[in-house]
Amino acid sequence: MSLDQTATKPHEQLATHLGGGMEAVNTLIRTRMASEHAPRIPEVTAHLVEAGGKRLRPMLTLAAAELCGYDGPYHVNLAAAVEFIHTATLLHDDVVDESGQRRGRPTANLLWDNKSSVLVGDYLLSRSFQLMVETGNLRVLDILANASATIAEGEVLQLTASQDLRTNEAIYLQIVRGKTAALFSAATQVGGVIATAPEDQVQALFDYGDALGIAFQIVDDLLDYQGDSNATGKNVGDDFRERKLTLPVIKAIAAASPEERAFWQRTIEKGRQEDGDLDHAQSLLRKHDTLAATRTDALAWADKAKTAMRCLPEHPLRQMLIDLADYVVARVN
Amino acid sequence: MSLDQTATKPHEQLATHLGGGMEAVNTLIRTRMASEHAPRIPEVTAHLVEAGGKRLRPMLTLAAAELCGYDGPYHVNLAAAVEFIHTATLLHDDVVDESGQRRGRPTANLLWDNKSSVLVGDYLLSRSFQLMVETGNLRVLDILANASATIAEGEVLQLTASQDLRTNEAIYLQIVRGKTAALFSAATQVGGVIATAPEDQVQALFDYGDALGIAFQIVDDLLDYQGDSNATGKNVGDDFRERKLTLPVIKAIAAASPEERAFWQRTIEKGRQEDGDLDHAQSLLRKHDTLAATRTDALAWADKAKTAMRCLPEHPLRQMLIDLADYVVARVN
Repeated sequence: MSLDQTATKPHEQLATHLGGGMEAVNTLIRTRMASEHAPRIPEVTAHLVEAGGKRLRPMLTLAAAELCGYDGPYHVNLAAAVEFIHTATLLHDDVVDESGQRRGRPTANLLWDNKSSVLVGDYLLSRSFQLMVETGNLRVLDILANASATIAEGEVLQLTASQDLRTNEAIYLQIVRGKTAALFSAATQVGGVIATAPEDQVQALFDYGDALGIAFQIVDDLLDYQGDSNATGKNVGDDFRERKLTLPVIKAIAAASPEERAFWQRTIEKGRQEDGDLDHAQSLLRKHDTLAATRTDALAWADKAKTAMRCLPEHPLRQMLIDLADYVVARVN
Repeated sequence: MSLDQTATKPHEQLATHLGGGMEAVNTLIRTRMASEHAPRIPEVTAHLVEAGGKRLRPMLTLAAAELCGYDGPYHVNLAAAVEFIHTATLLHDDVVDESGQRRGRPTANLLWDNKSSVLVGDYLLSRSFQLMVETGNLRVLDILANASATIAEGEVLQLTASQDLRTNEAIYLQIVRGKTAALFSAATQVGGVIATAPEDQVQALFDYGDALGIAFQIVDDLLDYQGDSNATGKNVGDDFRERKLTLPVIKAIAAASPEERAFWQRTIEKGRQEDGDLDHAQSLLRKHDTLAATRTDALAWADKAKTAMRCLPEHPLRQMLIDLADYVVARVN
């Protein structure tokens, strides 16, 4: 891939524009993941933090703050706090999902153990609150504490609802807000709050992050049934094999004949899967055209994100955030 | 047991004195452990919260606040926040220790699963920060975020150090501060801070909680080698079988002959335990008189706690807190 092509990706443009700020965030992350007494903590954290994630969430915080004219130091704290919450979530998720791989590398629970993943996650969550307290801004604490509760609630809900055929689109949305959108919307919102932006802009930043996160997750669900695993790094059918009720399936179940419903009951609810079931599942999604309907939903959420941006001031970052919303759904166009 | 005898226990006296406040704390706990979307959360939390713990930590917060003349509503928030941090820690501990029993009942990870324990713990930790944010007091947020980080750090340290014979009394103290004392000292300190007590009283409240917590944990370690399991609910030798380097053993290792050191290496470091090893371990503790030395340490910490109380105003609660320090070590006298 040439440098030019790389530069056209909105998250790369964001990274370039926010260069100095992101360096400050990375330095702060490295400083605060240290532990005077327990070297296991930075070992486990570094494994994940330095695995080459896109740092999308902290970039959203820096971008929102700069877009609203902030020139203080605390957006860096908030961006690092957001990344610590995200990292803690990943550590705990990998324990919960009994995952062996993340970002193409063995997970921390596999390299060390579940104990380390649980406790280091707790440490990072506490560290994130320390970073927020340093800003002296109670409203950002309120926003991020609420996001953190929504994340955990969404994950618990997913435990109990993801194999229950009664799970409808409203419950799905609740789970997706917990899994993804709550931290996206908090990341953008606190950027506006720390910049003391007008209330309509703060709300618009929340709406942008919320819609972007939902679009992001819906696309992820979609790629699992129709993606090119070379391009996405996901194997087609993983969600089906893991019996996850994602949006294309929820839509297919809503339109299912009694016979089709029995198929979903056997494969998702009871988990008794046989050879050829994935093919049959895909044929049902085609029959009810739910991949197209899901794609329409993703595009609508991306549009919602772009519309929200209209409230924000003219700025090169505003265009990058708009482009980012397009880019997130471009994977399924 | 007659009511009179019950009434002589300092924690019962505290419960009686703080009656209305503790009822408010319990109501707040029940309200905040609810979840609109995920009923699994209150189920898991109730199992632990209603299992009949003594609620010692929230009582310490209420007592400290009242002792310093506080008459606002926020000590109730802080007490509930402290109990949520404690409950989250227990949920995660039981996953880490693969425990099957706590307070004489099956643990949540056994009744539900590790996933629920990890995620509900995360939820309660987030809820505790929401409760603190509502007080509008940044200093209590700072104190409790620091305590929360110290707890996680101490637990990680215990993972790596508890079977390492190089673990000395300084590292032991660090672990104990994480396991127990950090939340005790934060619980008492935030009571003083919310009451805007003078700085020397806030410091004294911290010192009291810190010393009480350390005394409490040392006594726990001691009872594991010399207790009456009917009275303590612990089986003698559990720590030895679980290869935990507790204070009596650390002292015995510091005084060990090469042959004795080899015994500890085999049984604690390598975990190759045979019939009769517990008896031999106990004979080594007797030989070096480390149970008596450990008891002396516990009494010294209890004295430190009582001394700290001298800075606080005359008040029935002050005497109860002094009596509590005596009570904690009375189990080994």
